[in-house]
Amino acid sequence: MRFTSEQRLDDGVVERAFTLDEIPGFLWTPSSAPAPVPLILLGHPPLGLDRMYPRLVARARSAVAGGFAAATIELPGSGDRPRLAGAEQARADLRRAMKAGEPVSDEIIDALVLPLVDRAVPEWQAALDALLSLPGIGGPVGYSGGVISIGIRLAVVEPRIVAAGLFAGSFVPRTMFEEARQVTIPLHVLLQWDDEGNDRQAALDLFDAFGSKEKTLHANMGGHTGVPQFAGEDAAGFFARHLR
Amino acid sequence: MRFTSEQRLDDGVVERAFTLDEIPGFLWTPSSAPAPVPLILLGHPPLGLDRMYPRLVARARSAVAGGFAAATIELPGSGDRPRLAGAEQARADLRRAMKAGEPVSDEIIDALVLPLVDRAVPEWQAALDALLSLPGIGGPVGYSGGVISIGIRLAVVEPRIVAAGLFAGSFVPRTMFEEARQVTIPLHVLLQWDDEGNDRQAALDLFDAFGSKEKTLHANMGGHTGVPQFAGEDAAGFFARHLR
Repeated sequence: MRFTSEQRLDDGVVERAFTLDEIPGFLWTPSSAPAPVPLILLGHPPLGLDRMYPRLVARARSAVAGGFAAATIELPGSGDRPRLAGAEQARADLRRAMKAGEPVSDEIIDALVLPLVDRAVPEWQAALDALLSLPGIGGPVGYSGGVISIGIRLAVVEPRIVAAGLFAGSFVPRTMFEEARQVTIPLHVLLQWDDEGNDRQAALDLFDAFGSKEKTLHANMGGHTGVPQFAGEDAAGFFARHLR
Repeated sequence: MRFTSEQRLDDGVVERAFTLDEIPGFLWTPSSAPAPVPLILLGHPPLGLDRMYPRLVARARSAVAGGFAAATIELPGSGDRPRLAGAEQARADLRRAMKAGEPVSDEIIDALVLPLVDRAVPEWQAALDALLSLPGIGGPVGYSGGVISIGIRLAVVEPRIVAAGLFAGSFVPRTMFEEARQVTIPLHVLLQWDDEGNDRQAALDLFDAFGSKEKTLHANMGGHTGVPQFAGEDAAGFFARHLR
């Protein structure tokens, strides 16, 4: 992990850009803390860190204000990283199906999501290795938001992640429902009730499938990007309960 | 409204029992407050105030700690109040259907719930008249919990109620779905995902039907009485946003 820049934001947040095996990322920490702080990994959609930066830094400020460190890395195939084989084709198929008003087939969803999950999850685990070796960052670790299938896989395979806040707002391959049954950590799931690009019933079925004894679904009105401010506050309460 | 007893609880809460046209009730207020406080009406299932008292006083303490007054009245047909005509028959029909593993018919649900709603709602409105005339209690008013159909009707007909926290945990007559469409105040709806006595799909359909622009569904694991502590804290945040 190589730090490439460091700046102090106005509210006591230190932002460091880094690269890890050529994957860019950000780490946000409190400018002073008496003891190592828990870490929240900030997931995001595959639109590139540059484009996602304003929303990520807002979530990071909120996490740091809550007593956590926050970090994120670029997803495979996004930003300046090499495209994933087959991803362009899957996206073109998706656009065509949606334009034609057809249901999006399982084949398209699998081609779109599974290679991304397979590549991304080991990268987030490697980032975790590096981040947890830094002074000032302790466990436990939470995962928050982004591509829900990445969150599901991480929750299953990565024991250092003890709680996850997931956003039911993206296509979910059928095989991920099986993985969802293996999740046992506490979950806080956000659902935008009128998300135009999201199948509400599939989201409810996925929530039902999770094996966790503690799981909470928060459904709010509005479209994909209309998550209300107070939903973020409730999610902060979830992480405070489980990471402190 | 005639106060019949007054006691100071250990945490700065004053509890007063009252009767209003022979309907018993309770009012909980902060022992000192610099200005009139908003009021939360505490709904409850038709099991009698005596039996519900421990849970009601816990909710009242939490409301007062949040800067509110809280109040409740006995439901028609419950406690020492005269039984509602037809209610015994409806309850017997319900027990028979559930024992036989049959679906509970719309007729049984209507007979069980609609007379209760028709009688209870004007009584809660009369209680509101009396409570809001007391020094120390101001508006706005929230309604919380209990028989969800009473909450729906109150939200439609009572303009002094500006926010409602509802519990999707009881039978809902089909006609109440029409009334739900007329609700426009902010709603916070709790659903116990594994509530054995509750139809989950009907609860989701009801949430969908509400006309409110701001409505949030919080689904948690567990049965009817297993609402987790943190769900109460999130509901407190909802009332703090809308009543302060």
